[in-house]
Amino acid sequence: MLIVQKYGGTSVGDAERIRNVARRAISARKEGHDVVVVVSAMAGETNRLLKLTCEIARRPSQREQDVVVSTGEQVSVGLLALAIQEMKAKARSFLGHQVRILTDSAFANARIRSIDDTNLRESLRKKEIAVVAGFQGIDEHGNITTLGRGGSDTTAVALAAALKADACEIYTDVDGVYTTDPRVCERARKLQRISYEEMLELASLGSKVLQIRSVEFAMKYKVPLWVKSSFTGDPGTLVCEEDAAMEDVLVSGIALTRDESRFVVRGVPDKPGIAAKVFGSLAEQGVVVDVIVQTPAREDGRTDMAFTVGRLDVEKTNELVRRIGKQIGAGKVDHEEGIAKVSIVGVGMRNHAGVAAKMFQVLADEGVNIRVISTSEIKISCLIDEKYAELAVRALHTAFGLDKTETAKS
Amino acid sequence: MLIVQKYGGTSVGDAERIRNVARRAISARKEGHDVVVVVSAMAGETNRLLKLTCEIARRPSQREQDVVVSTGEQVSVGLLALAIQEMKAKARSFLGHQVRILTDSAFANARIRSIDDTNLRESLRKKEIAVVAGFQGIDEHGNITTLGRGGSDTTAVALAAALKADACEIYTDVDGVYTTDPRVCERARKLQRISYEEMLELASLGSKVLQIRSVEFAMKYKVPLWVKSSFTGDPGTLVCEEDAAMEDVLVSGIALTRDESRFVVRGVPDKPGIAAKVFGSLAEQGVVVDVIVQTPAREDGRTDMAFTVGRLDVEKTNELVRRIGKQIGAGKVDHEEGIAKVSIVGVGMRNHAGVAAKMFQVLADEGVNIRVISTSEIKISCLIDEKYAELAVRALHTAFGLDKTETAKS
Repeated sequence: MLIVQKYGGTSVGDAERIRNVARRAISARKEGHDVVVVVSAMAGETNRLLKLTCEIARRPSQREQDVVVSTGEQVSVGLLALAIQEMKAKARSFLGHQVRILTDSAFANARIRSIDDTNLRESLRKKEIAVVAGFQGIDEHGNITTLGRGGSDTTAVALAAALKADACEIYTDVDGVYTTDPRVCERARKLQRISYEEMLELASLGSKVLQIRSVEFAMKYKVPLWVKSSFTGDPGTLVCEEDAAMEDVLVSGIALTRDESRFVVRGVPDKPGIAAKVFGSLAEQGVVVDVIVQTPAREDGRTDMAFTVGRLDVEKTNELVRRIGKQIGAGKVDHEEGIAKVSIVGVGMRNHAGVAAKMFQVLADEGVNIRVISTSEIKISCLIDEKYAELAVRALHTAFGLDKTETAKS
Repeated sequence: MLIVQKYGGTSVGDAERIRNVARRAISARKEGHDVVVVVSAMAGETNRLLKLTCEIARRPSQREQDVVVSTGEQVSVGLLALAIQEMKAKARSFLGHQVRILTDSAFANARIRSIDDTNLRESLRKKEIAVVAGFQGIDEHGNITTLGRGGSDTTAVALAAALKADACEIYTDVDGVYTTDPRVCERARKLQRISYEEMLELASLGSKVLQIRSVEFAMKYKVPLWVKSSFTGDPGTLVCEEDAAMEDVLVSGIALTRDESRFVVRGVPDKPGIAAKVFGSLAEQGVVVDVIVQTPAREDGRTDMAFTVGRLDVEKTNELVRRIGKQIGAGKVDHEEGIAKVSIVGVGMRNHAGVAAKMFQVLADEGVNIRVISTSEIKISCLIDEKYAELAVRALHTAFGLDKTETAKS
């Protein structure tokens, strides 16, 4: 088998933990597998490096920031390769430009375009454990790029796809994917399996176990993805293609995103190209917009457009949206912070009616006012006041039958 | 003019110092020059990284160590580019593989083979200050290499040569080249000019102002080399081609190397290939051998071979030399630590007789016993007991007329 393992920052946080990762990789190698290991920067290192850039520049250019920040993973791969060699196994480290992980030029948030597997294949042929720096790539001009927070997951899955790996194992400090965040709801249950589609919705909705792009990649290339703990021997959760059994379950998980800010642009002219202008400009500035809702136009040919962004982007968004609002002749721009988004996700809801109605009823019963509703085929999201966030998650968790069973508890 | 500036680790030790370097580079740019800046890792960073590798492995593989250690310069170039941009000037950082500084594959001690100037020229054409990572390169297989301690000087001079720069300015925490180490001899005098040849001997003999290879490069490509302080506006010392005035000076400087260890292999068979075997094996192990002296063979066809190595290599050397000694049928191996080497250097001595005799007389007058003598065209070195090191330097400094004049003192 060819296995790609990925270890996050906590798993390589110090020399002892790096040795632990080395032992796991060697053990897979000794079972006869070809092993590629992707690592993140040591815990805290990326933040230390970002802080250095911020001491120098108020708004650091992202090209240069990527040059600085990508050193975190570079140190990790060197150290892990050394740890493996110290245990008398063969290893070789690879940086983004050495594998050749080609990305676009969106510094700080680049997307992988292609991966050349020649050098890695050569390394595996020599029975080396190939240790690859996560989070980083190179664009066509030879600039160093990074893939955005959590980008090492994407590196791992993209490598697994390029190498047609039999499994991609994401090691983290949690032991799998849960029905909801166990810190919010103590009755949260670990899932043995979950479909890519559900994981995608859960990831994009705030379950921070996996980076969303990595799940997209895994789905696209049908890479079996394991989420496991790097500290226990637990089998973890398998993210894979949907099967019949999964469809019997109405709701697989509940996601919660806090700290959203809601913007409403009032009286937007209902003309083609307006939405593209607004969200195109935000995208150019690197603002990630979450929920977008637009109501049908009123008799005056105008409409209201609502959307949410993360707290970090509020300032930039506010400035930009007010400017564009004027350009397109829109009315007032409202802006509200302290919004949470709670969502139920499940492939089963495709074949069942009444799931949305049930969700709204559960929230109503708890006295939670719903500000904005947004749905997709396998998820329903409600924006609510942040203070009700935990209450809403717990009530929905119970109502949709996700709580741990009595036997599981005892 | 095209100027290459190089700043060492102390000069980029923190955010404020990095801004200071940015100001200097911008000031040269504003005078209308094309500016390339080479930087080292922030002070202490290389040692921190080396320590990390040593926590993981007792004898780290040099390929992986280079991967880790080269991140120090990578952080520096990113930060300096940001600092320059923050001051509203244009800058772009370049790593070894982005310039394309091609080296051989001698990890931790690589030599530059060629430099592609295309990307740097392009950057200069755009009026950017090109900020290049010192100390690092890439081999033909795409592996990251480093040039050994002080390698950033070599990077700077090699870039100056490749770009046919008008000047290469090495900024350091001293303000020039002195007749000897001012900490050893308070009468040491700063030189305004010194020839490449003299600087080469001084550098190789322990004046740590410039890395020896950088001087070789500068001499080979006739790059005018300035040694300057990054904290003052002092003009510093110019290292350049020898001229008539320099030849009038008998001795230009006195170098001191402490902490040498002397090995003597007794009764070596006087056959071709023996020396090659001994020193070839040492070189393979990365041991840098300093003085080598071999006396003419005795009647029994045997000879004694003496050489010195730095303290760090003593253990490795001892093991190796005893093993090879047996193989070649040599006699006893003696080994003595606590040796210093004091040398006088000057292009003028080529045309003057009696310089060596004068040196030996000065040492004799001070009661210093000479253990080994070694000479070249422009230098004479004596190995002496380390406890006499400072005394010897001061006596020679005065005897050869290098002391500050009374007027210079007042």
